[in-house]
Amino acid sequence: MSGWVQVAGLGPGDDGMVTREVHDAICDATDIVGYIPYVRRIAPRPGLTLHESDNRVEIDRAKHALDMAAQGHRVVVVSSGDPGVFAMASALFEALEDGPIEWLDLDIRILPGVTAMLAAAARLGAPLGHDFCAINLSDNLKPWALIETRLRLAAQAGFAMAFYNPRSKSRPHQFGRALEILREECGGSTLISFAKDVTKPSQNLVTIPLSEATVDMADMRTVVIVGNQDTRQIGRFVYTPRRVE
Amino acid sequence: MSGWVQVAGLGPGDDGMVTREVHDAICDATDIVGYIPYVRRIAPRPGLTLHESDNRVEIDRAKHALDMAAQGHRVVVVSSGDPGVFAMASALFEALEDGPIEWLDLDIRILPGVTAMLAAAARLGAPLGHDFCAINLSDNLKPWALIETRLRLAAQAGFAMAFYNPRSKSRPHQFGRALEILREECGGSTLISFAKDVTKPSQNLVTIPLSEATVDMADMRTVVIVGNQDTRQIGRFVYTPRRVE
Repeated sequence: MSGWVQVAGLGPGDDGMVTREVHDAICDATDIVGYIPYVRRIAPRPGLTLHESDNRVEIDRAKHALDMAAQGHRVVVVSSGDPGVFAMASALFEALEDGPIEWLDLDIRILPGVTAMLAAAARLGAPLGHDFCAINLSDNLKPWALIETRLRLAAQAGFAMAFYNPRSKSRPHQFGRALEILREECGGSTLISFAKDVTKPSQNLVTIPLSEATVDMADMRTVVIVGNQDTRQIGRFVYTPRRVE
Repeated sequence: MSGWVQVAGLGPGDDGMVTREVHDAICDATDIVGYIPYVRRIAPRPGLTLHESDNRVEIDRAKHALDMAAQGHRVVVVSSGDPGVFAMASALFEALEDGPIEWLDLDIRILPGVTAMLAAAARLGAPLGHDFCAINLSDNLKPWALIETRLRLAAQAGFAMAFYNPRSKSRPHQFGRALEILREECGGSTLISFAKDVTKPSQNLVTIPLSEATVDMADMRTVVIVGNQDTRQIGRFVYTPRRVE
């Protein structure tokens, strides 16, 4: 039997947001590989081996998955959200580029999912209803100065913005700097939304003007969405109109 | 019985990319509202009324859905992809803002889906694996000059980019202007991918350097993805590394 690797997006947390093809891939798999909390979302069954690994070992995990597939295993690498958005798909291709040439012949597929910003936007209303950008605020893999430049250019372009990994214990102060830049470039009345634990029972949504936003409103489980100049609230919803004059 | 409206994302075309909550909403609905080709994806059954409408009547369609919900119907507004990305969610909130104040009390939910750029990225590999932006290239709802500005700023920020509605019969030449700007700002060796009819049997994927891209490679059924300076090809895949120096 020939092996394969599928990198599958589990969505933001609610099992109702998993696609059928991802569900089917998990049912067909012999091995599940991924970061501990994502692997724990998979129900154990006979014939399925669960391989949990820690954060920040993405390349090792990808190599392990490719190596098992080369040996005939049917491997699903589980990602939260969508695997192509700040998740495991790029890490898999980095490992592929770095690995034995035979790996290029493997059956490799990426199965998309509902990424966190789209789930957050849906629960908030439609804040990403016009042109927008997605920025990972972690400087683990890029210089902080580049993040500052991107925030300024994105604001000047009038993009709504979604931020992944806005703040962590190891870099508690950078998000405050990001808020300063956004207030300078967008003005204090622009709306910012903090969507924590989206679709989970602990979900918490807060929308306020940028002038009132504080650093402690975000953590690693929060997706932050900043509107454009036209983003507004109607009842309990926040949305960005489709039209710009 | 009390009514509701759910704006649901059907994904890019393949039924395997529909989430379970969207499937369940359609099963519970009394009425389906949407653009003709999306409504035709829904299987008819007794007790379900299908309301097809033409393109460019989004606000009328949204008002119709809200009005039926106010009368006790259970209405699903179907969108392609994700309803919050250049689709029906913002139109629904525009209609809500414009409508009777009682509509604010309605049970309204947005059900996210796999938007076209994420499905296209998955089939290509992982071209959106680093910071990126999504731009609707149609100037129906915004000035073309603003689109040109956004293209330049996005390129200067080093974003990968996804373009929706790159070209139509009524505006055949603007996409050529967009390609010119991208070549000026990004250089000719940057990779551009054309993903037509993603996940459908007629799917067609092409990746080439910007210097070789031509206007006729895109139409309204194509999602266009432009990489950043580090986007590369490995075997049959195109991906953007997670790290930027």
